[in-house]
Amino acid sequence: MTMKLYGSSDSGNCLKTKWVAERMGAVYEWIEISSFKGATRTPEFLAINPAGQVPVAVLSDGRVLAQSNAIMLHLAERSELVPRDAYDRAKMFEWLFWEQYSHEPAIAVRIARKFFLGQSDAELDPALLSKGAAALARMELQLQQTPFLVGDAMTLADIALVAYTRYAHRGGFELRDYPAVKDWVARLESALGLESALPVVE
Amino acid sequence: MTMKLYGSSDSGNCLKTKWVAERMGAVYEWIEISSFKGATRTPEFLAINPAGQVPVAVLSDGRVLAQSNAIMLHLAERSELVPRDAYDRAKMFEWLFWEQYSHEPAIAVRIARKFFLGQSDAELDPALLSKGAAALARMELQLQQTPFLVGDAMTLADIALVAYTRYAHRGGFELRDYPAVKDWVARLESALGLESALPVVE
Repeated sequence: MTMKLYGSSDSGNCLKTKWVAERMGAVYEWIEISSFKGATRTPEFLAINPAGQVPVAVLSDGRVLAQSNAIMLHLAERSELVPRDAYDRAKMFEWLFWEQYSHEPAIAVRIARKFFLGQSDAELDPALLSKGAAALARMELQLQQTPFLVGDAMTLADIALVAYTRYAHRGGFELRDYPAVKDWVARLESALGLESALPVVE
Repeated sequence: MTMKLYGSSDSGNCLKTKWVAERMGAVYEWIEISSFKGATRTPEFLAINPAGQVPVAVLSDGRVLAQSNAIMLHLAERSELVPRDAYDRAKMFEWLFWEQYSHEPAIAVRIARKFFLGQSDAELDPALLSKGAAALARMELQLQQTPFLVGDAMTLADIALVAYTRYAHRGGFELRDYPAVKDWVARLESALGLESALPVVE
């Protein structure tokens, strides 16, 4: 059975798993499912993932795996995207957990509400803006020192974090204030074979 | 140099790393630092962890590692707390990422605000209660099927999730509504050599 990836092409969390599957040369079927229209809350979908979230992978043996970063790790576990050095690997995990706790809940949420749901700034929790700016500043600090988040080579941490960072402007964040982050986005898009998502003129 | 763990004994995220260090027989120094009194935002602390969060490990070679789940993974990477089977290992990661995204931001936050900061229910975002209840229901569904979150043996996923679940009552959640979760808390506390945190009479 071919592996299935259920995901929304509007979602950075979903695209991460697709990019890693492509890079690993995995054979998979992409099943488009919107996270905005309640499609992840139907009885059929909840039978696949009781957490009601995309992405979800149904592996070739039929077993189910959820959580974008867990799916990436499973697909790429023995690849060059996971550092062999124990400390570098630990730092990769640090960034992956940080992404889900301190980056995605501010930046991805602001992108979803402003760009996809059309909410105005007045409707948004002001903490989202300061929390997102702090996350970008944290990345800038690292990327002024190293070309990738964990040193000299791209890891899963970069793939996880670029997914929403490249669309940060849709959430009202200005990447020109974070020049090392902006350069890193371009580097990652090139490495992943993606068209630039950054605004042409800022 | 002895490894240092900077953490607050009131914080499940910090205690996780202590429990794993103990279980691994690691030699370490615990440095108590409150996350409630601004101690993680001083210039001295930000020089150790720019993210301004505990726990942080300063390893025996002086290098720094943040994020509770990343520290646990680093300490226990080659132990029986990480499944050897690739799918079971992936499911452990699924729970670890889910914990930081869907469990901690509701249950730990409600514990902090109600129990430690003394806020009333009226001061709290009502979504915290429904999100926390959904997280406990998700765990109940799994723990009615298997004694631990990933099958028959304790993994880092159980240690990560028990840290705040055992104090869920402090956040206003009733574990008697989740009997399999309650039994699992007792099982974990016994395995980790902890005194019961569950209320004697519920």
